[in-house]
Amino acid sequence: MKRSDRLISLTRYFLERPHELTRLSTFAEKYDASKSSISEDVNIIHTMFEKEGIGSLHRYSGSSGGVSYIPYFNKTDSNAFIEGLCNTLEDPDRILPGGYLYMSDLLGDPQTIRQIGKAFVSAFYEQQIEAVVTVETKGIPLAYAVAAQLGVPVVIIRRNMQITEGPSVSINYVSGRSKRIQTMVLPKRFLNEGMNVCIIDDFMKGGGTVSGMVSLLEDEFHAKVVGIGVLAEAQDEENEQMIEEYTSLIKVSHLEMDKQRITVKKGNYFSDK
Amino acid sequence: MKRSDRLISLTRYFLERPHELTRLSTFAEKYDASKSSISEDVNIIHTMFEKEGIGSLHRYSGSSGGVSYIPYFNKTDSNAFIEGLCNTLEDPDRILPGGYLYMSDLLGDPQTIRQIGKAFVSAFYEQQIEAVVTVETKGIPLAYAVAAQLGVPVVIIRRNMQITEGPSVSINYVSGRSKRIQTMVLPKRFLNEGMNVCIIDDFMKGGGTVSGMVSLLEDEFHAKVVGIGVLAEAQDEENEQMIEEYTSLIKVSHLEMDKQRITVKKGNYFSDK
Repeated sequence: MKRSDRLISLTRYFLERPHELTRLSTFAEKYDASKSSISEDVNIIHTMFEKEGIGSLHRYSGSSGGVSYIPYFNKTDSNAFIEGLCNTLEDPDRILPGGYLYMSDLLGDPQTIRQIGKAFVSAFYEQQIEAVVTVETKGIPLAYAVAAQLGVPVVIIRRNMQITEGPSVSINYVSGRSKRIQTMVLPKRFLNEGMNVCIIDDFMKGGGTVSGMVSLLEDEFHAKVVGIGVLAEAQDEENEQMIEEYTSLIKVSHLEMDKQRITVKKGNYFSDK
Repeated sequence: MKRSDRLISLTRYFLERPHELTRLSTFAEKYDASKSSISEDVNIIHTMFEKEGIGSLHRYSGSSGGVSYIPYFNKTDSNAFIEGLCNTLEDPDRILPGGYLYMSDLLGDPQTIRQIGKAFVSAFYEQQIEAVVTVETKGIPLAYAVAAQLGVPVVIIRRNMQITEGPSVSINYVSGRSKRIQTMVLPKRFLNEGMNVCIIDDFMKGGGTVSGMVSLLEDEFHAKVVGIGVLAEAQDEENEQMIEEYTSLIKVSHLEMDKQRITVKKGNYFSDK
């Protein structure tokens, strides 16, 4: 096999398996090439990945050594994407009764999800995250987009006890704005005790749901929540957020039903520093 | 930029954007190269993609012409993956009360989801699918994995009316085995009338849920269901499936709680023909 062919094949191999360690000898066998040729291929791809701002190939030496693709993404690249998203979301047709914003069409587009996932990875790639946690339903694709790049599993908190998921821990919490008591359930098998996790969700209004997730994870599973990422937060002068430290990609404010006006700006990830 | 660098960059570009058409002149500008060089690069990548069984690069000529990556995957590759999955699932620890099988850990792993998505794409890539439809919750990551490769959006049917999704159509249906009446809701904005869709779900027992989805889609949205894919079907001598034509990747049978025994075999996609 020629070098050009190997480069194409290896590029795909690494992109599909973030954080997975593969030995050089595995590649040498697969491509019937010398380890030194493979090593050169890896260098070429590493340099190109760094140049394109999508991460790097890490080498680990020793008997359990090998190569692993560690993605990280450029915050500046995400910035342009999020600006476009803000413009799309400012359409008054998106305002729904109760001060909600229709975003489901965007969340249904795999390409948009991929870009949002990259933005979160650029925010969290330095944390030692062992699982990505979300609550059903709309945060699920975002959680998978992040988890795929971090090479970790997704854990989905449910709204009801599920017969197909075995013994579970349930908690009640008060939702931020409506002050209603709600339930969330996490099956015991889903998460080992004491893991480092990050929380991903689509929308945060009062922060009640996220705060409930933190309680469930930290108090019941002794997990450490090392990051909280929300796609959109609702900014509201009257109500304080129940959560202090989080990363938001966009900020929705001035949702005025009467005037059919809405303001969508970049979230604290892009604007606070 | 050298050819080797362009090949790495282009490989990533195509893999990330299935079914998206890009003009050769766009690449020529991006890489500061002649169109004939780009054209050669495209040929090299096309040949390699075909060799690796992951699809091909299609050329479209004329004024709106360009190149587009059309993924298809080898059924034989999926076959080996599904055999491994069957072995994993036959573990008696996975049997839950009521004859359910614990699969959530596998569904939480992005790499497993990617492989399952590929198997469905290998089954459905010849259909002209315009959207992938699933019902919350566990089919969602599978639906995204399929939709990303087909280059189409995902539509999620909900169990309850959602305030954040606007006017919706609801139907009641009878779940296959428990004979309980249940509800499903599809917001009107989610789907245009008359689209070709495929249904993806994680588990099919009596087929009641899938049959409800077909009614909702065909009767209320005048959609055409051109494919139905379920990860696992429960095989049961006593009850007939309510759905006749579908593609299953695995078949679960002999779920005997007392004996703690379970049989997991390949589904009809691999075994019927």
